[in-house]
Amino acid sequence: MTARARSYWGWGWADRFPDAAALRALAERVRPFFANAALEPRAAPPGDEVRLPAPRIEVPAALAAFCTSDRDARLAHTYGKSYRDQVRGLRGDFAAAPDLVALPGNEDQIAAVLEWCGARKVAAIPFGGGTSVVGGVEAAVGARYAGALSLDLRGLDRVLEVDPVSRAARIQAGAAGPVLEAQLAAHGFTLRHFPQSFEFSTLGGWIATRAGGHYATLYTHIDDLVESTRMLTPRGVLETRRLPASGAGPNPDRLVLGSEGALGVITEAWMRVTPRPRFRAGASVTFADFAAAVAAAREVAQSGLHPSNCRLLDATEALINGVSADGSAILLLAFESADHALDAWMARALGIARAHGGDCPRGPVVEEESAAAPAEGLSGGWRQAFLEAPYLQSAMISLGMLVDTFETACTWQRFDELHAAILEAVTAALRNACGGGIVSTRFTHVYPDGPAPYYTFLAAARPGAELEQWAQVKKAAADAILAHGGTITHHHGVGRVHRPWYDRERPDAFAAALRAAKSALDPDGILNPGVLVDLR
Amino acid sequence: MTARARSYWGWGWADRFPDAAALRALAERVRPFFANAALEPRAAPPGDEVRLPAPRIEVPAALAAFCTSDRDARLAHTYGKSYRDQVRGLRGDFAAAPDLVALPGNEDQIAAVLEWCGARKVAAIPFGGGTSVVGGVEAAVGARYAGALSLDLRGLDRVLEVDPVSRAARIQAGAAGPVLEAQLAAHGFTLRHFPQSFEFSTLGGWIATRAGGHYATLYTHIDDLVESTRMLTPRGVLETRRLPASGAGPNPDRLVLGSEGALGVITEAWMRVTPRPRFRAGASVTFADFAAAVAAAREVAQSGLHPSNCRLLDATEALINGVSADGSAILLLAFESADHALDAWMARALGIARAHGGDCPRGPVVEEESAAAPAEGLSGGWRQAFLEAPYLQSAMISLGMLVDTFETACTWQRFDELHAAILEAVTAALRNACGGGIVSTRFTHVYPDGPAPYYTFLAAARPGAELEQWAQVKKAAADAILAHGGTITHHHGVGRVHRPWYDRERPDAFAAALRAAKSALDPDGILNPGVLVDLR
Repeated sequence: MTARARSYWGWGWADRFPDAAALRALAERVRPFFANAALEPRAAPPGDEVRLPAPRIEVPAALAAFCTSDRDARLAHTYGKSYRDQVRGLRGDFAAAPDLVALPGNEDQIAAVLEWCGARKVAAIPFGGGTSVVGGVEAAVGARYAGALSLDLRGLDRVLEVDPVSRAARIQAGAAGPVLEAQLAAHGFTLRHFPQSFEFSTLGGWIATRAGGHYATLYTHIDDLVESTRMLTPRGVLETRRLPASGAGPNPDRLVLGSEGALGVITEAWMRVTPRPRFRAGASVTFADFAAAVAAAREVAQSGLHPSNCRLLDATEALINGVSADGSAILLLAFESADHALDAWMARALGIARAHGGDCPRGPVVEEESAAAPAEGLSGGWRQAFLEAPYLQSAMISLGMLVDTFETACTWQRFDELHAAILEAVTAALRNACGGGIVSTRFTHVYPDGPAPYYTFLAAARPGAELEQWAQVKKAAADAILAHGGTITHHHGVGRVHRPWYDRERPDAFAAALRAAKSALDPDGILNPGVLVDLR
Repeated sequence: MTARARSYWGWGWADRFPDAAALRALAERVRPFFANAALEPRAAPPGDEVRLPAPRIEVPAALAAFCTSDRDARLAHTYGKSYRDQVRGLRGDFAAAPDLVALPGNEDQIAAVLEWCGARKVAAIPFGGGTSVVGGVEAAVGARYAGALSLDLRGLDRVLEVDPVSRAARIQAGAAGPVLEAQLAAHGFTLRHFPQSFEFSTLGGWIATRAGGHYATLYTHIDDLVESTRMLTPRGVLETRRLPASGAGPNPDRLVLGSEGALGVITEAWMRVTPRPRFRAGASVTFADFAAAVAAAREVAQSGLHPSNCRLLDATEALINGVSADGSAILLLAFESADHALDAWMARALGIARAHGGDCPRGPVVEEESAAAPAEGLSGGWRQAFLEAPYLQSAMISLGMLVDTFETACTWQRFDELHAAILEAVTAALRNACGGGIVSTRFTHVYPDGPAPYYTFLAAARPGAELEQWAQVKKAAADAILAHGGTITHHHGVGRVHRPWYDRERPDAFAAALRAAKSALDPDGILNPGVLVDLR
């Protein structure tokens, strides 16, 4: 069997990258907004022409059964999928390639990797789907290490056990979204965690980065779906007890969640699963005024209705997504349940939206699944576009566009100020760096005490200057977020890109505690160095 | 103003302890169930006749403004309110009294206490409402310390700030339940965290012990209501950013939650608050069969309806609580909202209960608050009895009864086995230790993946042997919990009583990380020694 190939520089399956005609069509769609853009397709050099530094270390005999210094493997494990990563990939710059790639098939092999890396002072970088947009899997570990090994968990991709009574499943950390969903579906369950990277990202990556998922309220992060975890550290296994809840000291799972490969290698977890929803209700509400739409989203978030979707698109976002072109903001509301019809829930949420001036002339769409009519239509289109977006980003990058996203969260009280500051800072930075650009906003998740705003920026990049232009805009955005009460990341993670701002956001006393915890679990500091915290 | 006096040995206000006639009446109610019980009221020695060891240290000049070695203060800070504590108090055994009691009025004074304790190797034991039932505030710190200081936070009891837009309030840690609720009510808000200790326990104590509260589903623990925390450690302040959510590394608040005074002194927190509920719906459903009631509770917990109450009482519990005397189990269901009427929610929950054989002949009670009729009637009676229970326990103890509770949580799949094992172990231990006794069960909280069962046991104690009898039953219960997949505590905390089982439940690698974190924040090990983890 020949495995379907993933692009070594851009998003997703290589065979899904648009051909020349499709790229030209995309360029014509984009051109009206960016008069100064060349929009000339650039191709990445063929993978076998990319220059790779020679590995600094040889494959050790002890790991030879599942470890390689093969150039394709090293190429595929050099970067995640951030804008920076893709630009460097397009340029054929793979100077940061790991020396070795390990593909263990079981925990003993992972333990052997950690032991060998510890003894040889080789950095071990856990690698799930390789979809990090924050430099979380990058092998640039510096001269303190004898080399870097990318530890790819894809060999651990099974649903090992399902407990239908408690509605939980024991899943290996290397299972990607569709892989674990297919196995759960055979038992009548679904995890319902659909980050934008769903097609490739893995359970272990979600847990390590506290990924944000499908639900716009309530169970927004993977954190909320974790029942217990199992993590291999250089100092032994950290496995927590399967419990629906406990009050026994600080929650151990919460140290694993967000550990970003710096404390251990997550190998499996018991996850809370649900039956597939049978009932769905959805509505798209139009607001002439963004502030009114924000107020509606806030009231819904504070209502206790817990919609599965409560995504707010500003006018630019609505335009880009082809949802509305008249300057309206759009609030997407949806409920889903495996248990009960949702008429009362939807009616009240729409009532709130309308009281804030929202318009939903056709009313909500309500569906009940039957054997004859699986209820996928309602959310299917939105979800498909959502999962396609990263492919579109890669295509835009290949056309020379600067295109990236960032996200945060803040209290409702802070939002107006934070939002204005971000728009001002990013607009100014785009003007300075690129001669202008576009910024759009949506809420991906909302909470009783605040929203998680998500920003997309677009501009024409200058060939050869992309990384400096990007860095200028990124710094403006991140500085504004930190200065106005936001968090440097709601669900993208910290990695190497967000580290300077994370260090400012994180309380110093917590940094001291985290550093001490890392010393205890990873005394040689081999695990994903540069991420989260440094040993002294 | 003379402060209303709290009992120095038993629960609550001294003036609320039943008089001789009321105790006789209680004895007559209890006697039919315990043929071998003497039920002779015992009185605690007058407080001023209790013998206290001389303080090992003098009040230092630096802390003299808010620190005392006064005997009444030392008496009041010797114990929490566990069965063991109350028996020792009744006996006049206060050998473990702290040497000093500090009542700081601000953070500078707390920092001064920590500095002085560190320099003099004096243990500092944070003290909120003094309601621990697990030895969490006990000053038996051993000879490694020059003495022990009880650090009472009651001087920090204000709501400092309210953010009505984000629905959050900044509250000082020493505020007890009624104190903070009264201040929030002035702003139209409520925290809605009502543990059984509500009348005396404090926000800081709730956070330090991950207290369980009012909501039977969803927001079950104080953890879920915390927006940010502020904790003074010997190595500086740990203050987290106000955020509705974040994905930036392991969540710092989750290290503070459950820290039980061993990592720092919590001084304030931003808490998520809500308007007072306007709509309520409640129902009491009778089941002839406990297993059917469990199945109904499980289906409701997995339905996504999120009732505020979903408490299941077994037949014995229903009998003791005077809810039912015919051997039925009772499922109490309730919903509440400040936003919407709850008919659809309640109808579906009742539908589930009835499908499992539940009987609710009169149907649900639905209320909407108006100015003329505040909606308190429905839950008021249940809540009052709930908050009275600790007074009843003290009265029973004074009659020579062995009476205590313990709780756990487990997956639904494990429940039958765990429950049977607990009943068997506790029944056998009560027989061996006391010649027999009663065990009752309720679910205090339920989750999609499992319940939190709560057990009460009652027996006639042998005067002078109470602590040994209790220890025998407690060990049987805790061993059964650990052996059958439960947690040693769902919401009572770890303290000194649960420590041996906590050490078995907690992953060793997490213990190493926690010990390292404590070393970083409390290098001299002065904070609540014996609790959670020991420095090497």
